[in-house]
Amino acid sequence: MSHPPAPEPLAEVCLAVDCMGGDHGAAVTLPACRAFLESHPQASLRLVGTAEALAAARDWPRCTPVTATEVVTMDDPVETALRRKKESSMPVAISQLVGRDGDAPAAHACVSAGNTGALMALARYLLKTLDGIDRPAIATVMPNRAGRFTTVLDLGANVDCTPEHLLQFALLGSALVSAVEGRDEPTVGLLNIGAEAIKGSDTIKQAGELLRAAADGGQINFHGNVEGNDIFAGTTDIVVCDGFVGNVLLKAAEGLATMISEFIRQEFTRNLATKLAGLIALPVLRSFRRRVDPRGYNGAALLGLRGLVFKSHGSADAFAFEQALARAYDAARNRLTDRVRDRIALAAPHDEVAAAGNAQAA
Amino acid sequence: MSHPPAPEPLAEVCLAVDCMGGDHGAAVTLPACRAFLESHPQASLRLVGTAEALAAARDWPRCTPVTATEVVTMDDPVETALRRKKESSMPVAISQLVGRDGDAPAAHACVSAGNTGALMALARYLLKTLDGIDRPAIATVMPNRAGRFTTVLDLGANVDCTPEHLLQFALLGSALVSAVEGRDEPTVGLLNIGAEAIKGSDTIKQAGELLRAAADGGQINFHGNVEGNDIFAGTTDIVVCDGFVGNVLLKAAEGLATMISEFIRQEFTRNLATKLAGLIALPVLRSFRRRVDPRGYNGAALLGLRGLVFKSHGSADAFAFEQALARAYDAARNRLTDRVRDRIALAAPHDEVAAAGNAQAA
Repeated sequence: MSHPPAPEPLAEVCLAVDCMGGDHGAAVTLPACRAFLESHPQASLRLVGTAEALAAARDWPRCTPVTATEVVTMDDPVETALRRKKESSMPVAISQLVGRDGDAPAAHACVSAGNTGALMALARYLLKTLDGIDRPAIATVMPNRAGRFTTVLDLGANVDCTPEHLLQFALLGSALVSAVEGRDEPTVGLLNIGAEAIKGSDTIKQAGELLRAAADGGQINFHGNVEGNDIFAGTTDIVVCDGFVGNVLLKAAEGLATMISEFIRQEFTRNLATKLAGLIALPVLRSFRRRVDPRGYNGAALLGLRGLVFKSHGSADAFAFEQALARAYDAARNRLTDRVRDRIALAAPHDEVAAAGNAQAA
Repeated sequence: MSHPPAPEPLAEVCLAVDCMGGDHGAAVTLPACRAFLESHPQASLRLVGTAEALAAARDWPRCTPVTATEVVTMDDPVETALRRKKESSMPVAISQLVGRDGDAPAAHACVSAGNTGALMALARYLLKTLDGIDRPAIATVMPNRAGRFTTVLDLGANVDCTPEHLLQFALLGSALVSAVEGRDEPTVGLLNIGAEAIKGSDTIKQAGELLRAAADGGQINFHGNVEGNDIFAGTTDIVVCDGFVGNVLLKAAEGLATMISEFIRQEFTRNLATKLAGLIALPVLRSFRRRVDPRGYNGAALLGLRGLVFKSHGSADAFAFEQALARAYDAARNRLTDRVRDRIALAAPHDEVAAAGNAQAA
């Protein structure tokens, strides 16, 4: 494939941080911001929160406090966040990505650990979707046996998807992986219940045709159908699926990993002998745990919007939140939004099928 | 709920075994049959295979050889199995469940490790579906943190499902769990992307209404919506979903479990010190592995047919195949097919919504 040339990286990146979001608010987000700034000398932050919460960061270098008067809580319905909490930290943080009166936006990307539904609704409302993208999607990574990460999308923003949506997810995921993981021609797999092209529902079969056409047009590097196990085998860099399947999959994987960890713990604490064995095996068990620790790859991307928004897990600790900041930084620095636009632009001259899909979506 | 009274168990059970199916054929199935007969004194077997393969079992007690001239291979397309291999071990084994000229069938259930697509197609063709059931489903169990098993269906027989199909899966799963796991009022969860009834696609919301109505009619014990993690938390005894989601889920769980095992092995074999730790931890690691060993719960049920068919994993060893025989035995002994009929019969007088669903399905 002839993938689009990568745009020049930005020299300086500013992130807007919703310091109030998540289960722990500023107690987690501020220490994470501090650590992030130390390891990213070219980054600056716009810290969004109540004056009280931001007092501790008053004199921090490369930080601009942005005052919000309210907070969108984890339990707030989307309606409340959209209509009645316009001055809360989440919408104010997202608004930093919108340029006013021809000025450039104040920040390049926004990070929040707040409630996903509200974040997506506010981001769609305040930023709007990109031309050629019908619906934004949520993407995250899962570790794989190849020692890398598999990017999976959509994770729940879109319950029912058309073939065109799945194609758009492939474009968005490819741009994300090229920007954040530095893989120029990431491979895309279409999640299905068999590797053969004749398998699956009509939607999946049609999506397969669109993806093949997009690969012919140089938009993506399409591998073909993949199955559930391929996510953890690392068969492709990206796996696209509808939001229902992606959400079930993500939560099932979390549930299974939790169960296995618990079984291991139970077996090692069964009696004195097993506890002793556990003590001896502790360094090994710790290094195993590090490899599957979801904190290390925290930070889901809300893709397809006219601005970069990253969602941290609500229960993230400072280490995990810092990872989300780093992912947002990489995406902004490597101009993810421009990369998405470049891939979409490749469609029109090459391929009628994909173009029809994009036209319908726009 | 007023669940249907359990039918009297059968005193004697005969299983038809496709001895040629699976990756290893008779080399695995015959030793499994031998071990199964020893632990099940009230069981008899009809061993289906080529004369040559069955020679070793010629003088075994409680065994009747049934000669087949061909074998459906793991790679045979469904068409070939249906049309051109009528005398092969798989269809001959399934045919043991069909009574001829008013006679009772020769066997109560059939077990095969052969290719799933061919097995389902042949079973549908030779046995037909039960009244009130529109489409057969495949069910299996996954271990959960509660130390029990969660029965999940459908696992891939039905890619697109209507709300009525999901209701039928709930009835089939409830009958299976009551027969095989001995739980009289098993709880049913509807797989969704949120616990609230307003979440999910239209199909899922309508399925939720049908399931609530079926619970009111005493057909099932409906818990409500569940999410992916609930499968491994053991929130409900049964989780129903469409075959696409179920298949992706099952394979993703297998893939994740494989990845975690591999990571553990890698960490314990990294150097001399970790190998030593692994040696000391070996008994603990073994007892952990036993808890998540999929061989221990091998045997997926093909449900909704006028006859009981169980599918063993193709790569099963003798121990795993024996577990599939034991599951089929329990299902037949506890009259699973009658239990399904009893649950369906409860629908009509109680509830118009469910009745409409069943009428359409019949």
